[in-house]
Amino acid sequence: MSWNTFGRVLRFTTWGESHGPALGAVVDGCPPGLALSEADIQPFLDARRPGQSKFTTQRQEADQVRILSGVFDARTTGTPISLMIENTDQRSKDYSEIAQAYRPGHADYAYDAKYGIRDYRGGGRSSARETAARVAAGAVARLVVPEVTITAYVREIGGDAIDPAAFDPQEIGRNPFFCPDPAAAARWEPLVDTARLAGSSLGAVVECVATGVPAGWGAPIYAKLDADLAAAMMGINAVKAVEIGDGFAAARLSGEQNADEMRPGEAGGSAPQFLANHAGGIAGGIATGQPVVVRVGFKPTSSILTPQRSITSEGAATDVRTKGRHDPCVGIRGTPVVAAMMALVLADHKLLHRAQLG
Amino acid sequence: MSWNTFGRVLRFTTWGESHGPALGAVVDGCPPGLALSEADIQPFLDARRPGQSKFTTQRQEADQVRILSGVFDARTTGTPISLMIENTDQRSKDYSEIAQAYRPGHADYAYDAKYGIRDYRGGGRSSARETAARVAAGAVARLVVPEVTITAYVREIGGDAIDPAAFDPQEIGRNPFFCPDPAAAARWEPLVDTARLAGSSLGAVVECVATGVPAGWGAPIYAKLDADLAAAMMGINAVKAVEIGDGFAAARLSGEQNADEMRPGEAGGSAPQFLANHAGGIAGGIATGQPVVVRVGFKPTSSILTPQRSITSEGAATDVRTKGRHDPCVGIRGTPVVAAMMALVLADHKLLHRAQLG
Amino acid sequence: MSWNTFGRVLRFTTWGESHGPALGAVVDGCPPGLALSEADIQPFLDARRPGQSKFTTQRQEADQVRILSGVFDARTTGTPISLMIENTDQRSKDYSEIAQAYRPGHADYAYDAKYGIRDYRGGGRSSARETAARVAAGAVARLVVPEVTITAYVREIGGDAIDPAAFDPQEIGRNPFFCPDPAAAARWEPLVDTARLAGSSLGAVVECVATGVPAGWGAPIYAKLDADLAAAMMGINAVKAVEIGDGFAAARLSGEQNADEMRPGEAGGSAPQFLANHAGGIAGGIATGQPVVVRVGFKPTSSILTPQRSITSEGAATDVRTKGRHDPCVGIRGTPVVAAMMALVLADHKLLHRAQLG
Amino acid sequence: MSWNTFGRVLRFTTWGESHGPALGAVVDGCPPGLALSEADIQPFLDARRPGQSKFTTQRQEADQVRILSGVFDARTTGTPISLMIENTDQRSKDYSEIAQAYRPGHADYAYDAKYGIRDYRGGGRSSARETAARVAAGAVARLVVPEVTITAYVREIGGDAIDPAAFDPQEIGRNPFFCPDPAAAARWEPLVDTARLAGSSLGAVVECVATGVPAGWGAPIYAKLDADLAAAMMGINAVKAVEIGDGFAAARLSGEQNADEMRPGEAGGSAPQFLANHAGGIAGGIATGQPVVVRVGFKPTSSILTPQRSITSEGAATDVRTKGRHDPCVGIRGTPVVAAMMALVLADHKLLHRAQLG
Repeated sequence: MSWNTFGRVLRFTTWGESHGPALGAVVDGCPPGLALSEADIQPFLDARRPGQSKFTTQRQEADQVRILSGVFDARTTGTPISLMIENTDQRSKDYSEIAQAYRPGHADYAYDAKYGIRDYRGGGRSSARETAARVAAGAVARLVVPEVTITAYVREIGGDAIDPAAFDPQEIGRNPFFCPDPAAAARWEPLVDTARLAGSSLGAVVECVATGVPAGWGAPIYAKLDADLAAAMMGINAVKAVEIGDGFAAARLSGEQNADEMRPGEAGGSAPQFLANHAGGIAGGIATGQPVVVRVGFKPTSSILTPQRSITSEGAATDVRTKGRHDPCVGIRGTPVVAAMMALVLADHKLLHRAQLG
Repeated sequence: MSWNTFGRVLRFTTWGESHGPALGAVVDGCPPGLALSEADIQPFLDARRPGQSKFTTQRQEADQVRILSGVFDARTTGTPISLMIENTDQRSKDYSEIAQAYRPGHADYAYDAKYGIRDYRGGGRSSARETAARVAAGAVARLVVPEVTITAYVREIGGDAIDPAAFDPQEIGRNPFFCPDPAAAARWEPLVDTARLAGSSLGAVVECVATGVPAGWGAPIYAKLDADLAAAMMGINAVKAVEIGDGFAAARLSGEQNADEMRPGEAGGSAPQFLANHAGGIAGGIATGQPVVVRVGFKPTSSILTPQRSITSEGAATDVRTKGRHDPCVGIRGTPVVAAMMALVLADHKLLHRAQLG
Repeated sequence: MSWNTFGRVLRFTTWGESHGPALGAVVDGCPPGLALSEADIQPFLDARRPGQSKFTTQRQEADQVRILSGVFDARTTGTPISLMIENTDQRSKDYSEIAQAYRPGHADYAYDAKYGIRDYRGGGRSSARETAARVAAGAVARLVVPEVTITAYVREIGGDAIDPAAFDPQEIGRNPFFCPDPAAAARWEPLVDTARLAGSSLGAVVECVATGVPAGWGAPIYAKLDADLAAAMMGINAVKAVEIGDGFAAARLSGEQNADEMRPGEAGGSAPQFLANHAGGIAGGIATGQPVVVRVGFKPTSSILTPQRSITSEGAATDVRTKGRHDPCVGIRGTPVVAAMMALVLADHKLLHRAQLG
Repeated sequence: MSWNTFGRVLRFTTWGESHGPALGAVVDGCPPGLALSEADIQPFLDARRPGQSKFTTQRQEADQVRILSGVFDARTTGTPISLMIENTDQRSKDYSEIAQAYRPGHADYAYDAKYGIRDYRGGGRSSARETAARVAAGAVARLVVPEVTITAYVREIGGDAIDPAAFDPQEIGRNPFFCPDPAAAARWEPLVDTARLAGSSLGAVVECVATGVPAGWGAPIYAKLDADLAAAMMGINAVKAVEIGDGFAAARLSGEQNADEMRPGEAGGSAPQFLANHAGGIAGGIATGQPVVVRVGFKPTSSILTPQRSITSEGAATDVRTKGRHDPCVGIRGTPVVAAMMALVLADHKLLHRAQLG
């Protein structure tokens, strides 16, 4: 089944192919009265936009967003917000080869196996270009959760991780890697450049932290906040792994080590001060009031210059090398997408929470 | 919001608390004409049932399932299948303390922060006992996907992993750990027993492999097969991490290393023979026909004997130690739950696929 | 597809067949902290219960409801509320004939055409007995909307309508027809009795009015309050028609006649005093603050003694007469069901409204 | 809540305001491989298009549809189909008055009561202009159900009904009223013209018949085919009533009169020949194979020239007369919308049916 809507009460639907005339998102359920213009969305699209450094694809897209509905007198009206981004740099000729052969690691074969037809230009609907629509929708979602601060950054590229002790949030915007550790950013420059020049690619781990999420958001049993975050992140192109809090490392701790002990909170009442956050801010699917911490593993870009063994759509053996313009490390530009999905999940859960709790 | 339904067209809803009179599941959308009786469900519940070895909680529950609707003349009728399991060993006295104090790592505080009221007996709705209803629903789902074989096993306990070279599927049912490596099972026995005697607990990693999933099942963009699996697994009690295929390890590979190259398939046609399965059987959210591989990280059980710092529901400092009957390693009994969720996701996607594709 | 869940955020799922061991409902999304016990539900079930007068089926069912989950210390906890009603008077022998032949007007043939199998005992899942579960769920929904008063009554039986000028709400509970006009009730007694004795049946029109619905509840464009009410009512067994406000009569009015003019409200502010209510309290899918008025047409019970031409499940010609215990006018006992569906729709929309609007 | 998506597996989402830059629909879940171009959609939009006779609004809109995604090489790909229609004749000046005053019968006050803000130009989101998007989506849905023939027509205007004996389907496209009875069409010409010249308006009853719907489509219990049709139709602007088959008239029949008796079908097997169709082709929520018959009541257009008593958004008394360009009988242009919603419901149920049944 084709399924292009996400969310339960704050819902968004995306549409569009890599090389069609445009792509977009329809955001439904947004509260009315929020100040919203293209200028609130564009910076987030700009952060994801290709062609801004040599470490990302050289496709040139302005990624200018237009608001087509749902806003009146510069405020949201509560009706659906239609967002559209035109495709301007499509170069269909670059992609002629993949019409015939399945690129390993891409969804070419899977789409054909499912649908028997695919728009092969630039990967069509399976292109990471679809995530531009999510980023636009995420910018709207952020306005719904002004109490929350979302920070996303690359934690690791090609196995080379940041030093958590050197974490500096100001640094994230100062380098082309969304890297919070200047020393790591310096190391990544030759690392990524070498992969780029070799026509190879690297994986990455992206971390996203949301602070200010009130205790109580979330939803047992089958819409747990962590389950919804896992779906949101795993659905991003090239993502293969998701952790909450300590994640897999928690599987190697004892119960004593993993405990998030509590002391009375400074504000009084029953809100505790937690002495640790192994849980990543979520217990039983519900936010505890601690920072919500998610870690996301991106595989290396599947498009590489080295010829790979594959087959044609008729089943004949062939070799494939992808010559187009590609990201040497797709996790970099995935970072604003991770942040957008965090905003979208939290905004949905805020509204769900007040539906039941008032 | 309370959200107790899972699935899009094959849907199930669970209900019930740890210490209420019963718990259950309603399975809706099941195809008609499938042979179904309690005997098809009971073995899966028995595999998850507590009290069968000293390595799991000593709570004694028969976990006898009753089918209350949706079956006629020993066949499903296509109408909702109501499954009920009575609670028989409740011992409410064991849990009197947690009425007042929040157990670290448990959802006690989160439920109170959300709802202002909670059934504290045995964790109420947040108890892992809810997963019995999922296992029962999963047994029905298996009948919907007879072409698929699902194997789940514990891959690692407390940081001690199996030797993949020693993998023997026959071994899984021969030890109390669902362990496919007899040497590892032998090591885990003292490991888990020591934790149990110390009133401590251990984490685990569970792996689940589904073979026979046809290429094409799955659903771009927001109901990707991997995204739905991620949500399904992350929603299981105590789970903090999910990987598909190589998962986080893929983030440390180069594009060349991570490629799942293809050669013409033996059957002819366009179905390839894959030379590797780094992707875990899913590309672009759609099954490729390779085995679907999911890995799930369980934190150590939060209930431990060592006193921990916490607060009362009035916000006063207190110490908590959990004296009840608990699993020293909740990941063990989580294994049949992982398998059940795999079956439920695949059955839903099989039906979704044929909705669109016929 | 089998689809047994209703609602968007306050959702309920029903299960069970006419002659299975039990039937029930799971209500999910209910706010916590509401006082709830079986005694809050039973009166509504008793109003729908068969066998209370000679004008309804003589099947004897106690319809005792049990709450199996979601309530603790006599209050809702916000987790799913499982409600179960056991079937006690089943007499399967009465229904042996319909195993072979399709009763005209019943869903026998349609179920077989869809599923290829059906529980023919008492109509199985298609029996109006399913509505007992809705009535139980509706009793919970009423607690969610205490600001609303719901009144349902029979307006017409067999073409004989009440005199609106004689409307007396106190009268509704004083006769076996839920009739607000004592003169009409007196006329209906011989009317329905004659049909009953002849083994025939009559149709009815039921009206339901909800006062106290705040302006603003509702949801453009595809979850309009009137659209959801239409679905809710049309989904009740034997219903073939639904009107809001003036309904079909509005199609015969001019724009001037149909206008609900406004004057400033007594309370000041922008809440108007309406001078008419042709719209039935809903404009653009959103409540206006006026009474919400729905009218529902029930066909005559399809089970009649007169032999009717039909076919067997093998396609052979046969005659069918239904000898079992049946309602001579199913609209009568449908009245509490209409009220329950009104409560369920309004409760869902109350929660949806505050999800978006806070 | 704002809710702008319809359908369960074949889903569509509409967006746009009467006087914004554009409006559109995103159709998701459409099967792949269907031949589709703008030329397949435009005729349906043209039938609904304003300004084609003096009996409809004089607003001039080309209503040219563009397909922005989901189609490749002139065939659907299974991914979301984005359809856009630009607004070209907006004349915002015509609507300046309704910024201040609530028009009786319109949703002005309801939107303000809900959202506290509204796009008052031309009714904004509540304008019947939204239905253009549904008609476009409906044209796609028709391709999904080629086995079905849908015929919609006006049965009654201002209380003056067609003569069923004079029904001629060829006639429907030959007059500006979608009227199948030439004598009625001749009478309606002066009727509607008189209302138009007087600045008044008339209601209408539209009937829609779908033949070729296979027995078995549909879905007990809460997604009944008739319930979904009721929601679909009641959600159309100005609709206040929906009937299936005999509808309210069935409430005045005896069980004997209302029976749809059966004889063995000509094709053999268990498919019967029905001797009547009081049920309108649906039993127990499931299609019987007979024509599906729906009747829809439209109120008279609320926009009339006669001054009406109302209030301003500040709550002051005022008089309102609507001077803009309006339909004297909104039911006429509602006819293609009714047909579109029929197609969308049937297409969704076709896919739902094969999800469960294969």
